[in-house]
Amino acid sequence: MTTSNTQCRLVARPVGLPKAADWEITREPLPEPGEGEFVVEVEYLSIDPAMRTWMNAGRSYVPPVGIGEVMRALGIGHVTATRHPGFAVGEQVSGVFGVQRYAVSDGDGVTKIDTAAGPAPLHLGALGISGLTAYFGLLDVGRPEPGDTVLVSGAAGSVGSVVGQIARINGARAIGIAGGADKCRWLVEEAGFDAAIDYKTADLRAELKAHAPNGIDVFFDNVGGAALEAALNRLARGARIVLSGAVSQYNDAPRGPANYMQLLVARASMTGFVIFDYAERYPEGVAHLSEWLRTGQLRSHEHIVRGGIEDFPATLLELFNGGNRGKLILALDP
Amino acid sequence: MTTSNTQCRLVARPVGLPKAADWEITREPLPEPGEGEFVVEVEYLSIDPAMRTWMNAGRSYVPPVGIGEVMRALGIGHVTATRHPGFAVGEQVSGVFGVQRYAVSDGDGVTKIDTAAGPAPLHLGALGISGLTAYFGLLDVGRPEPGDTVLVSGAAGSVGSVVGQIARINGARAIGIAGGADKCRWLVEEAGFDAAIDYKTADLRAELKAHAPNGIDVFFDNVGGAALEAALNRLARGARIVLSGAVSQYNDAPRGPANYMQLLVARASMTGFVIFDYAERYPEGVAHLSEWLRTGQLRSHEHIVRGGIEDFPATLLELFNGGNRGKLILALDP
Repeated sequence: MTTSNTQCRLVARPVGLPKAADWEITREPLPEPGEGEFVVEVEYLSIDPAMRTWMNAGRSYVPPVGIGEVMRALGIGHVTATRHPGFAVGEQVSGVFGVQRYAVSDGDGVTKIDTAAGPAPLHLGALGISGLTAYFGLLDVGRPEPGDTVLVSGAAGSVGSVVGQIARINGARAIGIAGGADKCRWLVEEAGFDAAIDYKTADLRAELKAHAPNGIDVFFDNVGGAALEAALNRLARGARIVLSGAVSQYNDAPRGPANYMQLLVARASMTGFVIFDYAERYPEGVAHLSEWLRTGQLRSHEHIVRGGIEDFPATLLELFNGGNRGKLILALDP
Repeated sequence: MTTSNTQCRLVARPVGLPKAADWEITREPLPEPGEGEFVVEVEYLSIDPAMRTWMNAGRSYVPPVGIGEVMRALGIGHVTATRHPGFAVGEQVSGVFGVQRYAVSDGDGVTKIDTAAGPAPLHLGALGISGLTAYFGLLDVGRPEPGDTVLVSGAAGSVGSVVGQIARINGARAIGIAGGADKCRWLVEEAGFDAAIDYKTADLRAELKAHAPNGIDVFFDNVGGAALEAALNRLARGARIVLSGAVSQYNDAPRGPANYMQLLVARASMTGFVIFDYAERYPEGVAHLSEWLRTGQLRSHEHIVRGGIEDFPATLLELFNGGNRGKLILALDP
């Protein structure tokens, strides 16, 4: 029986890629639930590019993780102790539990996992926040019409790979930008994209011209930088750019798209969105995503790394090294 | 009786501010109208920041002015000869006649001026493309609600000064960014803005915080650069940025807004628009603008420079030197 909690705390604001000295692994006694609380033993940690933004000071859509605080993370685990009437010991739950082995929760923002719909990791991937981000970002903000050309950057990632598939389910063409021949092959052969462009070797401009001869109607951007500038130069009239992330910008001084006035040339829009705003509509998204997974129209891919809390810092770096395909998850050793 | 036409032709693509050597003044015989054509003697030339973009090669919303061609310009003049059944000698008309004394037209895009609604220069300003740009850009793209805070850059210009006034007519608060104390005083005392910020001396960030304590709901951007970045940092939730121009960017290598991901933080959008798309709705805009001018709710200001065709290059530079207030017009000597 474990008697201590292991945690990964942010102890310095990183400059560039997070380094070992920005983190501290701490151990403290196993927490006890207060009245109206329960304790979760975390089994899976969702490793997301947005984590890098949570480590910076300054205005964002959530407050920064404080220095000395446990790093924020979505996760899935089992309830191990409870004084909360709504959560029983043994139930599997999803929530923002942080990078730690045990978390105390009052149930706020915590949902019970329907394991009949798929194993736990799927609920962090295509059936979780990643899938919902793809679903609402593409359909609500991007609004592709049948026959539209949808471009997605970070296409081999957890959100991007679902975006392209939902685009195709809705009758649009899907073009992905990803890093490396393996990822690009996977996008076309497994995820069913119409085309994939390897940004590491391709002439983005020429490839976009070839694959989007009539222009890009929807660009779902997870990356920013060169991908955003290339897309801006190829927008169709009235195009919609969905700003979901900017992973190329998170570790450097950010750089804006120098050709942003192409939005005027194309009478296009660029709109930011945050998935948490759609919380009331999650059931609608989950229902569609579940059905598409069931019928095989949608495939989920989880990239699962096994390890302990102390492996979190290195696992996070995989996101920025381009190591993962699909949803990156740290599965904690029992 | 004049027997020759004077023209200003673009002979080189400028790098930075247009210089004398980029232009050539040419003279050629007075044109004769062909069948279905008429000749206009141009009396007023509209001097617009967008002209600088028309001089560059590359994709834009209109083709670039070709090397050796007469510079493109909106203007107003009288019909002096006609073989067109719809246009009689003596009628006053507005159209894209170019920087030349006499233009031949087939009537495409030409409208007759209703001088009962105001003198000719007004039809290039608040009752012309500038006013219509303000009207449709603000109301159709920006969509301010009563009580919203509307920020406009280039506020003392022909479009910006009308934007702020229309914002107020619609029950919103209007804040302008302009260069110089005189312009700022004029915006508040004459044009009725709630506040004006002198970007040449003010701390933009601090002033926006003071004047938009609840954030900016609509930003009508004519300027780009520092104004756009400051506005992005102060957006209210769900804000709309209307991209109308980027005059700070036209003479240098353009620079994108480094903090564009504030669009995500604020769940905001940035949308480009081109006034020509609204051609079918111009009568609606003119009707409202005329009525507001008649009742005194809207004031127009034209900055009229007198001279010849050969004075066009120097007059254009006034736009970029911040010399004008309201609509800059070159009134051609008879």
